[in-house]
Formats: sequence, C-alpha cells, structure tokens
Amino acid sequence: MIVALAGGVGGAKLAQGLYHVSPPDSLAVIVNTGDDFELFGLRISPDADTVMYTLAGIANPATGWGVVNDTRATLEMLGRYGYELWFQLGDNDFATHIARTAQLRAGDSLTEVTRRLSRALGMRAALLPMCDEGVATLVDTPAGRLAFQDYFVRRRHADPVSGIVLDGIEAATITADAAQAIARATVIVVCPSNPVVSIGPILAVNGYRSALAASSAPRVAISPIVGGKALRGPADQMLAGLGHDVSAFGVAQLYGGLVDGFVIDHADREQAERIGALGMRVLVTDAVMRDEPDRQRLAREVLDFAADIGSSKR
Amino acid sequence: MIVALAGGVGGAKLAQGLYHVSPPDSLAVIVNTGDDFELFGLRISPDADTVMYTLAGIANPATGWGVVNDTRATLEMLGRYGYELWFQLGDNDFATHIARTAQLRAGDSLTEVTRRLSRALGMRAALLPMCDEGVATLVDTPAGRLAFQDYFVRRRHADPVSGIVLDGIEAATITADAAQAIARATVIVVCPSNPVVSIGPILAVNGYRSALAASSAPRVAISPIVGGKALRGPADQMLAGLGHDVSAFGVAQLYGGLVDGFVIDHADREQAERIGALGMRVLVTDAVMRDEPDRQRLAREVLDFAADIGSSKR
Repeated sequence: MIVALAGGVGGAKLAQGLYHVSPPDSLAVIVNTGDDFELFGLRISPDADTVMYTLAGIANPATGWGVVNDTRATLEMLGRYGYELWFQLGDNDFATHIARTAQLRAGDSLTEVTRRLSRALGMRAALLPMCDEGVATLVDTPAGRLAFQDYFVRRRHADPVSGIVLDGIEAATITADAAQAIARATVIVVCPSNPVVSIGPILAVNGYRSALAASSAPRVAISPIVGGKALRGPADQMLAGLGHDVSAFGVAQLYGGLVDGFVIDHADREQAERIGALGMRVLVTDAVMRDEPDRQRLAREVLDFAADIGSSKR
Repeated sequence: MIVALAGGVGGAKLAQGLYHVSPPDSLAVIVNTGDDFELFGLRISPDADTVMYTLAGIANPATGWGVVNDTRATLEMLGRYGYELWFQLGDNDFATHIARTAQLRAGDSLTEVTRRLSRALGMRAALLPMCDEGVATLVDTPAGRLAFQDYFVRRRHADPVSGIVLDGIEAATITADAAQAIARATVIVVCPSNPVVSIGPILAVNGYRSALAASSAPRVAISPIVGGKALRGPADQMLAGLGHDVSAFGVAQLYGGLVDGFVIDHADREQAERIGALGMRVLVTDAVMRDEPDRQRLAREVLDFAADIGSSKR
C-alpha cells in the first residue's frame, strides 16, 4: 500500500505516475483541502479535483487542472447574470461541484462524497481529503489577509507573502480512512507539491504528524524546488517571504524528522550533503516531470529509493 | 400597465405576444411557482424560466422551454456521477439555477432574485413569482401523491389525476410587487395556461382573488382548451379527472366571477352562449398560437377585447 500526500497539479503528476506503476487499489492519495472554497454557492475542492481528473485520465493536459475538452457555457451564462468570472470552471467541472455540494448538504462527509465521485469516474486509487472539517488557508500580504484562491487565482499570486494562517485547523482531525491508510502503508510519498500551502496544511491537521511518525514504512519526499525555483506556482516566493531557504535544502528543512529520504534534481546535487546532514537519505535524479513517461519514471525511482530505505530501516 | 397571469409554455407564448405589442416596461407577468422544485441541490423554477427565456428572446423554439442552442455537458457529467437524468437541463440553464440558488441562500427573496436574473437577460417586462414562500403542487394519482415534476416530466403526465394539493399554500401571500402591479393594472390577462396547476395555484395564494376582484381593469382569460383538447400538456386529462367539463366552457366555469371576458377558438363557437351566461363577454377568434406573428395577433385581439370591455365597464 502506497500513501501519497499531495496538493494540486505538481502532486497530481507524481500521484499519476505512482498510480500507473503500481497494482490497482494499492494507492491512497491524501489531498490538501485548505484551498477549498465556495463559489456561486458551490463547494469547490481544487486539489482533490485535480488529482481526481488526472488519475481518472480526463484532466486537461494543457493546464493540468480541469477536464479535457471541457466547454464553458455555464460559466459564460453566469457572466451574463453579472458574476465576476475570475475562476475558470468548465461545464463538466460544474457537475463535480454541483454533485459535491448537493451530497455535502445531504449530510455526507467530504471523504464519502470524494470516494463516490472518484469511483464514478473509474479511479481505483483511494482519494482521501485531509480532513472532513473545513480548513481555509489564508495568506498574509501587504494587501491584507487574503483567502487562498483570491491570492492564488484572482490576484495571480503576485502579492508578497509574509504569513500563512490555517483557519479552522484546531478543529480539524485526520480522518479514519487517512489514519488507516497511513497505518497500512508500506511506502509514504510526499509529492513535489508546495510545502507551505499544499503539504503544510495536511501536516497541520491533528493526527498526521503522529501517524507519520508511528509508521514503519519508508517515507520519501520529492523537492518541488529545482535550481532555486518552483517547478510551478509561487512556492519559491512563499518560501522567501516566510524566511525559508529557497532551495531543495530549504524544503528538506521543513520536512526534517518527518521523512527518511529526499529526492532532488541533478541541478541541486551540491545540496545533497547538507540535506543528508538533516538525517535523510538523498536521491539525486531528474526530478522534473515533463510528460507522462517522466511521471512513471520518477515514480519508479521514488519507489525503488523507498524500498532501498525500507530494507535498511528494518 | 398590463398584468398577465401565466404558467409555462402556453402562457409564455401569449405573454411574449403582449410584450411585443405593448410599450416597454408596461407588462408584468405573474408566474406560477407551484411547479418549483429542487434538483441536484438547485432550485428550479420551470414556469418563471420559460417566461423569462421566452421574453428575453433566448427560448428554444423547438421545445418552448430551455435556452436555444444550449448544450448538455453538465447534465451528462452528472450522469457519469450516477444521477438519474429525467429532467433536461442545459448548461446555460444550469447557470440560471446556480445563480438563483446562491442568491436565495444568501437571503434574497425569489421576487428579488427573479427580477435580477430577468433584467440581466435584458427582459423589460416585470417577471413576478406568485409568492416568495414555497408552495409545492402535488398530484393525487392511482400511483399515490406525486410531486408535480415527478408526475409531469418523469412519469410524462400519464397517471390519471384525481386531486391536486397545494402544499404550503396557507402560508403563501401575494407579494408587494404583484399586489402593486394588479392595483395599477389597466388590463388583466389570464393566459391560456393550465387552469388547474398553472393559474389555479396563483389564484389560491392569499390575496390574489381579492386583488383581482378589487381591480377596475378589464379582466380577460383565454381558453387553453380548444375543441375539447388541451393545446399542450395534460390540462384536458386533469379537468376530466377532477370532474370538470373538458371544454372552453369548463375552463370558463373555473374563472366564473373572476374575469369579465373570455376568449375561445372558432372551434368552440357553439359554447359562446353558455359561457356568456356565466356573466362574461366572449370573443371568438383563432385562439391557437402557431408561430410568433400568431402570438402578437392574439395579444392585440385580447387587448382590443379588453379595451372594449373596459369602455363599457366604466
């Protein structure tokens, strides 16, 4: 059983690689829900949907999010009704949010709803929201404290970030499904997602750090920072704004004590020694996933690396 | 000021005719909301939407309901998620229901929401829901008591109807906007809609019968039954099931004391005398609207008939 912790597009890429190189039903992806928000009265779970669409094989390859060949008739009509269209939602995507919202309002948990939606799309990995409680990632900027999607999408992550607040985190607890997946895991993979606003919120939910610490499985993280830059999104700016080192090493520091192995790109090979000094084994490889074969190649390398760590950990 | 009482497609046709032959801003359509229901967690107002789309010039001419050239991506994706697709909703249509639901949940009244949506589509007539409270038309059949859309759409109005129940009607009251429109009306038109489940619910809401009785404006109804058959839908079967005469005369009986004039088709000219004996003036004309020019022609005839009644009423 492989457990992967993931955020949006970057995490979904490696999760898809893991999904394709491992037996069916052997992968559980625990996904950040701190980015979730309500729009047009509908509950949107951007990271969960990105992983779901990607692993179901219907993601838009041009963007990494949304459904391939989706149309925008519903959104455009909402524009006619006077709504501001700052968040892109396709017609297929609307169905996801309508179904999720209706099922949540009917009293089902987010875990149960996400399971039902992902199974309906034929996804055989377990897709597990980090918690069933509402947690909202807020971003402190010179323009004030912003809701995550406001910062990320509407304002195109252009504001310098001086702090992150996880609203509601005190009341959030690891779900029974996620706890069970981690307890049964033979490999734990922290995907190359934003360490601050994708993996950070998962680790901040009550129960994850202790569950991960209690696991005897090898735990491996992949750096989302290559050559001092984020492969995607504002992780580099965020690390800088929060006073962290903007490097693979900086990310490794954040995961200190939490993972047994750390995967970095050839571009960062000179950081291997410093990362090793944090108490992690280091794998230097091509950590950039350009296409689908890349995702599977990196996934295999991560699993081999983990197996190697596992054999020495026992 | 013209006030029209209407249900769905049949009523929308005459309302559109009235809209086009009268000055802008001079028409108010009071529409049945007893057919409203919730689907996929969204509030759907079929009759209001049919009138709105028709008067905004975007109705699907092939069906009379829905938006012309609308696509069905959202609905089909909901099918993938396991929902039963018995009620047709296009992608544009979904936007209407999403917007309405979000605005109602935000605390706005149905009157306010309907005003905002219809204005956004460029409709210059006032579209007024019969009430802001929830009223649900239920239909008694051998298969039991059915929600209206269950009877009408899902079961294709195939069940014999033995009774109509308007759930919630005791708490429903004429809105301030509708009361004001009727008080200011110089003509009141009861459209050729189903007298039992379209016009009936409007008249059953507290305040309508007294407001109509208090009006000095000429009040004219148009028969939706021609040659003993409903022009559209199950009005004929319903009248029979409820023990009414299945004829223009049967409809006129239902409107006895409520209207000053009644419009029937040439096919029913032999009923003119009996209808006249109910205390109504009768206009015999071509009461079937086959195309848009027909709608305007009938609208003009109705307004002329009303003006004639008005001049003798004063």
